[in-house]
Amino acid sequence: MRHVLVIGIGMGEAEGLTGHALSALGRADVFFLLDKSEGAGELVRAREELIARFGKPGHRVVRAPSPKRAPASLDSARNTYEGAVADWHGARAALLAGLIAGELGEDQTGAMLVWGDPMLYDSTLRVLAKARAQADFAVEVFPGITALQALCAAHALPLNAIGEEVLLTTGRHVAAATPDAPAFAVLLDDGTGLAALAARGFQGQIWWGANLGTAGQVLHAGTFSEVAGAILETRAQVKAARGWVMDVWLARRDG
Amino acid sequence: MRHVLVIGIGMGEAEGLTGHALSALGRADVFFLLDKSEGAGELVRAREELIARFGKPGHRVVRAPSPKRAPASLDSARNTYEGAVADWHGARAALLAGLIAGELGEDQTGAMLVWGDPMLYDSTLRVLAKARAQADFAVEVFPGITALQALCAAHALPLNAIGEEVLLTTGRHVAAATPDAPAFAVLLDDGTGLAALAARGFQGQIWWGANLGTAGQVLHAGTFSEVAGAILETRAQVKAARGWVMDVWLARRDG
Ligand SMILES: C[S@@+](CC[C@H](N)C(=O)[O-])C[C@H]1O[C@@H](n2cnc3c(N)ncnc32)[C@H](O)[C@@H]1O
Ligand SMILES: C[S@@+](CC[C@H](N)C(=O)[O-])C[C@H]1O[C@@H](n2cnc3c(N)ncnc32)[C@H](O)[C@@H]1O
Repeated sequence: MRHVLVIGIGMGEAEGLTGHALSALGRADVFFLLDKSEGAGELVRAREELIARFGKPGHRVVRAPSPKRAPASLDSARNTYEGAVADWHGARAALLAGLIAGELGEDQTGAMLVWGDPMLYDSTLRVLAKARAQADFAVEVFPGITALQALCAAHALPLNAIGEEVLLTTGRHVAAATPDAPAFAVLLDDGTGLAALAARGFQGQIWWGANLGTAGQVLHAGTFSEVAGAILETRAQVKAARGWVMDVWLARRDG
Repeated sequence: MRHVLVIGIGMGEAEGLTGHALSALGRADVFFLLDKSEGAGELVRAREELIARFGKPGHRVVRAPSPKRAPASLDSARNTYEGAVADWHGARAALLAGLIAGELGEDQTGAMLVWGDPMLYDSTLRVLAKARAQADFAVEVFPGITALQALCAAHALPLNAIGEEVLLTTGRHVAAATPDAPAFAVLLDDGTGLAALAARGFQGQIWWGANLGTAGQVLHAGTFSEVAGAILETRAQVKAARGWVMDVWLARRDG
């Protein structure tokens, strides 16, 4: 039977991977790279270096351009963000099913490398589940350190107060409405979530980090109203200087 | 300056640690083991094996019985769960500050091993922050794979649906009220959270796992109303057979 290994690579440094993830890199006959081609050549290189260093002799790398995600209003029958993403996943699933059937021998093993952990705001597992309707293969998952864990480690920060609930959410949700949860961690924010929270006069603390685990890592923490402005400025500076910025933050309300 | 390394050891297997965490094990002069002595000798042994295998020559292990947590009504000025826990943290902080000042030389490094990742429902970072009011030392954190990541990996499960929010919560909260979030992950449940959800006729899916990453790992998944009973039975059986059970689950509501 064909196998596909989904390997969490944390923030991309070899030392940040688990032993299980490193061994998995050494099991694959074929690595599938579906690049979103969103600039960030630095990140693509980190992945290629891991493959070159830990891949077994004779492994192959198969690259496929990932289908572009079209704006919901143009491309999707369901005229929503989720609808557009679902359509895009369908196209990726068909592509992957073809690659797995075409590039892997009957008993061979393929691998896909995922930033952080595949469980967290990543489509690979969902797309592979869809692809299994069209091709016969087993999936094995190897966890990796998420951006949220890198944030907490850098700040020596417990995610939750004692016994407290924490919401994992996205910039899109925070821009729409301030979460009710006593604490919330925000991924996939292009700055609009943070700016919206500031505009609404959010009262609490924030811990923020960008480009974690890379040479350009930046951190900020403090009272939200005092540091939100500086964070948005830093975010823009990092993006201008480095060509990309990825950031994650935790907010905890007062009281 | 004294350093204290807080090292996430995932589910306790050496291969589940990151390279950074393994190196950190090799940096410590002294390991502090504050055992909650809650049975689970198996878990204590896993930690001791990691230290023996990756600790540097000449390292020392300092054991201190952790102050027992008393029931809120007996022991705490603030008559609540959080109050009792905070008091207990205060006692632990004083103990740790004493150990760090007494057992570590001026330039030495201590280490504490934490299950999963120190950011998630663990008191070590909070206790160390309190201890820093009484002793002078720096803290460094090394993330580890959490039980929730082990759950998702075992089920090849994305934590969130596309762009969806996920609440991280505890059995205590779920027993009190069903979360509003479209999906919620539950730690620290002694079965009462799951039983309460079942009694309320929760409509959705569940993915459950116990003793993950150990030889006795058990998984269940399915429609909540169909599998909740079997999960509670399995939970009781695992506990009876093995002497301990630790489980974590994700629920996603229908629609
Ligand atoms: C598509 S999600 C993938 C998350 C990933 N699977 C994980 O486990 O961290 C991308 C988001 O992760 C966060 N992120 C990823 N890498 C990061 C980094 N190096 N520093 C800060 N945030 C990062 C950002 O919030 C970014 O918008
Ligand atoms: C005090 S919390 C610590 C969580 C830990 N810091 C982590 O990152 O996973 C203990 C809870 O973690 C979960 N847990 C820890 N180890 C587990 C295991 N091997 N299998 C399933 N759940 C586990 C259970 O929900 C348990 O009640």
